Parts: sequence; C-alpha cells; structure tokens
Amino acid sequence: MALRGGLPTESGFVGVEGARLVEEALHSGCSIQAVLFSESGERHHERLAPLIDRPEMGFPTLRTTDRLFEGLADTEHPQGVAALVKPRETSFDDLVNGADSACAPLLVVLAGVQDPGNVGTILRTAAAFGATGAATAASGVSGTASPYSPKALRASAGAALHLPILAGVSLAILQTQFKIAGIRTLASSVRENPGSPLPSSGARFSASPSVGAGLAPPASGNRGAPLAPWEVDWCQPIALLVGNEGAGLPEEIERSADARIRIPMASRVESLNAAAAAAVVFYEAARQRNAASPRL
Amino acid sequence: MALRGGLPTESGFVGVEGARLVEEALHSGCSIQAVLFSESGERHHERLAPLIDRPEMGFPTLRTTDRLFEGLADTEHPQGVAALVKPRETSFDDLVNGADSACAPLLVVLAGVQDPGNVGTILRTAAAFGATGAATAASGVSGTASPYSPKALRASAGAALHLPILAGVSLAILQTQFKIAGIRTLASSVRENPGSPLPSSGARFSASPSVGAGLAPPASGNRGAPLAPWEVDWCQPIALLVGNEGAGLPEEIERSADARIRIPMASRVESLNAAAAAAVVFYEAARQRNAASPRL
Repeated sequence: MALRGGLPTESGFVGVEGARLVEEALHSGCSIQAVLFSESGERHHERLAPLIDRPEMGFPTLRTTDRLFEGLADTEHPQGVAALVKPRETSFDDLVNGADSACAPLLVVLAGVQDPGNVGTILRTAAAFGATGAATAASGVSGTASPYSPKALRASAGAALHLPILAGVSLAILQTQFKIAGIRTLASSVRENPGSPLPSSGARFSASPSVGAGLAPPASGNRGAPLAPWEVDWCQPIALLVGNEGAGLPEEIERSADARIRIPMASRVESLNAAAAAAVVFYEAARQRNAASPRL
Repeated sequence: MALRGGLPTESGFVGVEGARLVEEALHSGCSIQAVLFSESGERHHERLAPLIDRPEMGFPTLRTTDRLFEGLADTEHPQGVAALVKPRETSFDDLVNGADSACAPLLVVLAGVQDPGNVGTILRTAAAFGATGAATAASGVSGTASPYSPKALRASAGAALHLPILAGVSLAILQTQFKIAGIRTLASSVRENPGSPLPSSGARFSASPSVGAGLAPPASGNRGAPLAPWEVDWCQPIALLVGNEGAGLPEEIERSADARIRIPMASRVESLNAAAAAAVVFYEAARQRNAASPRL
C-alpha cells in the first residue's frame, strides 16, 4: 500500500492523505478499499468515526506505527490518516449526460497542464463555480499531471474525487465527440511567465466587437478576436479547454474550437495565474447560470 | 544602499531588484535615485538602456562586483540589476480625484493583509482590472505588509509602483473620509484556511435576494445577506475593503460599510485564495465598467 506517487495501484486505487481529504473521500461516494490510522493519527478517529463506522461501508480500518506511516506518506509531517480510494470511473456519456438535468454540461478540459498544483486548483475552482465534469488530455508539448497525485489532490481540496473526470483521453477525439454531442468548445490558455501574457489589446481595456448572445457558429471558425468571458453565453453546453502553462493549446485545437476566450486586462499588468484565470472564467459561467435560473 | 528588507530608507527610497521590476520602475514615473548593475548584471543593460540613458532621467548608473551585489540583494540568485525608487506620494484627494475623469474611483483597501505575497497579488490583480488606487491600513489583529517589500513588489509585478497607494492610514478615519467623499464601501475578506470559508449558503448556489441596481443606502446598515459581486453596481465610486487572511475585517468596520460582499460558490468546496477572490471581484467591476463605457 504505497501512498507515495499518487498513481493508481493495479486495482485502480489511489492513496489519499490527511484528515480533511479522507473526509472528502468518504463523502464522495467513491469506493474505499481501506482507511489507515497511525498511532498519532488516532486523534482524527473521532472526527471520521461517523463516516467510517457504518455497516454499509464495508472496508477495513487498519492501524500502523507512526514510523511505518511516515515511510508510506507523501507529506513531510503526515497527519497519520490515509485512505485507499478508487476514483469514480467516468465515460464520455457520463460527462455529457451525468450533469444535473436542470443545467447544461459545463466542462473543463485540461490539455497539457503540467503542474499538479495547477491541475488541482483548476478542478477545485471549476467545481466551486458549478462545473459538472472535467477531462484530462495530453497536448502537443506535454501530458497533464494526474488529478490523483498527492499534490493535485491537496490543491483540489477533494474536488478531484467529487467531480466526474475522464482521464487521459485524446484531445482530437474529445473535440470531435464534443461537436457530435452539441457541446461548444472554448479555447483558453494558462500562461504563467511574463514573456507570454494572455492576449490583450493595446487599449486600457480591449473594445471587443459584440458577438450577440452566443458563440460564432462552428462552421465559421474562430479567426476573429477572442471573446471576453461576458461575451459568451454560458447557459449552453460548454467545454473550456485549458492549455499548457507555457505553450498554451496546440494551434490546430485552438483553430477548430468554436471560439477563443481571453480575459481583458489593463495593458501594463498582463497575466493572471492559473487559479485566478480559472476563477474569473467559471465565475462568469456561474453568474450567468445563476441569473438564468435563480433556483440553481 | 541596502536593498534587503524593502522598507523605505530615511529619504523614502525603496530597493527594486531584477530586470523586469527595474523596467517597471523606470516606466512608472516614480523618482529614481540610482540604478545599480553588478558585473554579471551588465547583460541587462542593453534592454534597459533606452530608459536609463536619457538626459532627463538625471540619476547615476552605478557598477558593483557580483559579490557585493549578492550581499545587498534580497533574492538568492539575483539578476544583478537593481534600482532605488521613491514610491509616488499619494494623498486621500489623489485617490479620490486622481482617477481618469472618465471613470469613477475603484479603490482597494488592504486592512490587516499580513502576507506580502497576498498584498502584491491583490494590487496586481486590482490594477489589471482597472482599479484606480489603493490604501493600506492596520486591522484589529495585524498591520498590512508593506507593498514595497521585495516579496510584495515581485508579486505585484510592479503594480505597487504604478498604482497610487495611500499607505498606513487609520481604517476608521479612511471610512469616514469615504463617506464624506461619496465613495461606497464594500466589506470583503480573504480567508485562506479551510476552517474559515467565505460565507456561503447551504444551497448549491446561494439564492441571494435581489437588491436592484445599487447598494443599500448607508443609513440602513448592512445587516442583510451579503451581495454577490453581480448584485453590486460597480460603475459608482467604490472602495473594496479586504481584511486579514484569518480574522477578516474588524466587526465594526464590516457593520459600518455600505454592504458586504460574498462570492457565491458550491457548498462543498468553499474557499478561494486571495488572488482568485480578488480576480473575481475586480473582473466583475471591469465587466460592468467595460459594458457601460465601451471606449474605456
């Protein structure tokens, strides 16, 4: 039972560490293989007992020494509580149809996001603003870090276990499936270094052309100016594509998306980090969906 | 010429390190006392030469050894270029009247924000979305980190030098001045630890009562539910108050503000970090101001 590394075991289980994450895992409805307490981790037992000690849970609670636990743990000062959890298996159909029937799918696709902290933060932010699912894919330059690595799980505050995630798919196939399923794709990118700011016009704020209430039809391509978040109709079924931290999305993916999106900013201070950019975009989606359906 | 520490010298100058920040300082219009290159920092001279070698600049360019520079520098691997810069002096009147006459003041008040990285990030984000000025104040529990410390300056990406900042004022006096000047105050807080999430209702998204286009009149107090960012009319003159990372704003300040603000989020994943929360709120202000005045 190696917690280190965050990769699924052969049976598909991943290690989850710390009282808060274990609590999230127990709440998530994911299958649990075992919960493990070290001697000093016993102090968290009371908090977790209502979730663990139910007959229907049907998994063993194991005890270990502090020393053995430290050898298994990924963190430097482990809290002494961990669980082996099987992330939910998600199909493309789950992503598209699994959402609450009251709201259209709102998906985030991580394509080549290398940093596990960014992966976790984007999932957490997306979930906080009502995203209904996620997918991870490789881009031309890199793969996407596993949402189940210890760092990504911590940064996601458990959202990686709650949100349906379709992992390790081909970006080109996914984009085709989105088109067939009637889900609009929006190309965005996370650029962190100052040398590659998010696109922005020379003006204080860009005066983007109005595009009406929706996106340009897919057939027309997206050669026009990128849209500001408020120019997108977020009540439709939408997948936001987020690219590699340095290189962004592959060019052909950007070209074949229904539209590109950009956060308009003052010209001198040009970039937001991954967390802030994701927060702004999903906030806009939540704002529109909340306004359209106040009982959401 | 001690760069370390980030506190103004007796003459009010602060040290600014690294090619990008020195460039920002030279662009900012702030008074420069000197620019310093180490031997290995000379490679940045060409990039900065157009800004330095103008007769009207009137400050000396100094040379030093790498060893001496490392002793002065705050960073572990200094780039070998630094400047002594006098941050602009800002009065309350500058904050209120200094903004572009085309747009109402949009201010951020940091009250007890302890982490210099948060101070810098909030200033950078505010500036990116068109804030016209900032103020720093102590709260009941702590002071606010200096915007000119090396860490805050780096996190601000130079915004601390561009934005008018009224530093170290009394929060109570500032709030009174805002009332007299007709600037609405919005109480927000930055809570980072999971134990103290931003207020959120039990519903998936809170169904906040509609409050029309503006804020409640000051006389009525703000005992009602906090407003979602989209329920605030950001085209009016507004100051957003941001509190301590753990404790938030002092209660009496929250009570006497014109309204409280909260970012509605799904119930299970309840907090945003300081950067993401600031990005969402100032994005909403920019969205409304951009829509109201497309030529901004």
